[in-house]
Amino acid sequence: MDVSEDDLLAAIRKVLAGAVDGVVVDVGDDAAVVRPGSGDLVLTTDALVEGTHFDRSLTTPRDLGAKAISVNVSDVAAMGGSPRHVLCAMTLSDDIDGAWVMELLGGMREACDAYACSLVGGNLARGSEVTLAVTVIGEVARGRAVTRAGARPGDVIVVTGELGSAAAGRRIRATQHRFDEGDLASIRRAERPTARVAEGQLLAGHGATAMIDISDGLGLDLKRLCSESGVGARVRIGAVPLGSRATLEEALGGGEDYELLATLPSEAAAVAVASAIDEAGVVRLRTIGEVLAGADLFQVDSDGAEEPLDPTGWDHFQ
Amino acid sequence: MDVSEDDLLAAIRKVLAGAVDGVVVDVGDDAAVVRPGSGDLVLTTDALVEGTHFDRSLTTPRDLGAKAISVNVSDVAAMGGSPRHVLCAMTLSDDIDGAWVMELLGGMREACDAYACSLVGGNLARGSEVTLAVTVIGEVARGRAVTRAGARPGDVIVVTGELGSAAAGRRIRATQHRFDEGDLASIRRAERPTARVAEGQLLAGHGATAMIDISDGLGLDLKRLCSESGVGARVRIGAVPLGSRATLEEALGGGEDYELLATLPSEAAAVAVASAIDEAGVVRLRTIGEVLAGADLFQVDSDGAEEPLDPTGWDHFQ
Repeated sequence: MDVSEDDLLAAIRKVLAGAVDGVVVDVGDDAAVVRPGSGDLVLTTDALVEGTHFDRSLTTPRDLGAKAISVNVSDVAAMGGSPRHVLCAMTLSDDIDGAWVMELLGGMREACDAYACSLVGGNLARGSEVTLAVTVIGEVARGRAVTRAGARPGDVIVVTGELGSAAAGRRIRATQHRFDEGDLASIRRAERPTARVAEGQLLAGHGATAMIDISDGLGLDLKRLCSESGVGARVRIGAVPLGSRATLEEALGGGEDYELLATLPSEAAAVAVASAIDEAGVVRLRTIGEVLAGADLFQVDSDGAEEPLDPTGWDHFQ
Repeated sequence: MDVSEDDLLAAIRKVLAGAVDGVVVDVGDDAAVVRPGSGDLVLTTDALVEGTHFDRSLTTPRDLGAKAISVNVSDVAAMGGSPRHVLCAMTLSDDIDGAWVMELLGGMREACDAYACSLVGGNLARGSEVTLAVTVIGEVARGRAVTRAGARPGDVIVVTGELGSAAAGRRIRATQHRFDEGDLASIRRAERPTARVAEGQLLAGHGATAMIDISDGLGLDLKRLCSESGVGARVRIGAVPLGSRATLEEALGGGEDYELLATLPSEAAAVAVASAIDEAGVVRLRTIGEVLAGADLFQVDSDGAEEPLDPTGWDHFQ
């Protein structure tokens, strides 16, 4: 590190300066102080670890900073909430310089601005690898948070956006040397994902009974939602929206899409899907299956054959 | 790691189970959901990194877990707040087993119970070193948080407890092979510090104008408080309360005591000090100097000689 901790903190305060609604004390004191609204608080924390979640030679610090925010905001979105305040405990290795940290913070600030939340505090520590442990404090109308546990047999299963793009982007980047526009769009999805905050609120507003963000793959995250709800599910494979460069395996098992998976009563789902067509006519919400009694997951292919759905995904420890 | 992530999460949920006031959704969903009180929120995050902050061969996972909570609660205490909810993003290396994690969580739970707050969420990731990034969400009466920025010339400077014990404990542990009771008490202060929550509230209630926790040493943390407040200070060296095994250098420059340093108008300080004598007659608050106009820090020794105070401390990057 080419600057002292106090000098770096002073630089960080300049980058983050700017009065924000509801922030009483921001970066630079023992703790931040913020004024809550009338809703419940949504609290989540998630770390990006060098070597496990990113390779510093393959990402810019600006994209990395933005991604660290987005993966956490995605968890708030999956409860139907809005992100409000962000903290980041950074562990930095000795070869990191002040300019890299400023770029990282610039990316965090860009993402926070996009999600209308503010970075109000953090911490710096030294370690042998870079770790960004971000916490997001969000808000949701009192008693209206959507958990993973409320899916009921007969509910319809919906997903936002398209699946598999991030996995396709990682594959394309690792195996190709020349990229067309579609390749670059997939790579971009992997490097700079977008949390589906508006979609989460739309789904919550239409009576979603359960919701989860797809961080480890559709199969594994659907299995988690079903397990918490004590239900099974049937997915129509032909209805799963594939990213333009994604294979079916990438759509079902690839992680880091950060789309939302939700269940709703069928009439409510129809209304939600109809309302989720944006100005450009793009459908942001698709029905992919239904919730079953029991605990089994099935997939139905286009010729009607039904078989067990393999909850393939990314288990961080296996 | 000898267990899968989902199995470890299931075990963690069992350890942390138990309904707590104000917790709507706890460990196991995308995010925790809690109901705020009527006060402002106090938000802080701080990481303990293996190799930088701890050595796994020299601490038990139970002490380490408790310390990770205490160092964060200390920041809430330094604002005059009460800790309410805790999140922990854990990075674990491959050689960690499930039993170690359960002990770590046991220590976190013990500390949370002692501070009357609850661990409501977290995250697991794999890395090459263990990192515990803890976030504490606390509460303080609306508009009543005590920052570092309010000290005024003429205010009195007070500290809680005794200083230098943690540094003495680290030195004793590193240099001795046999320990007496006093040695062990100092080592205990280093391994399992206590955040001064009640003292912080007492000081806030008596009108503290500025407050900071002493994590990097009295000199450096006093310099930070004075810098934020735009003031100088004079410390009477003979009045600094030394831990029983601590040298003066350890009391002035040693980190990790997690005592509180505060400034108050002099009459208010006298009342606060008088009220801070516990049932056993132990004085928990001592006056050590006064706030000056300007920006210089001075120390006065017992024969009245005044010289610049060297803000020695622990800068994590130098």
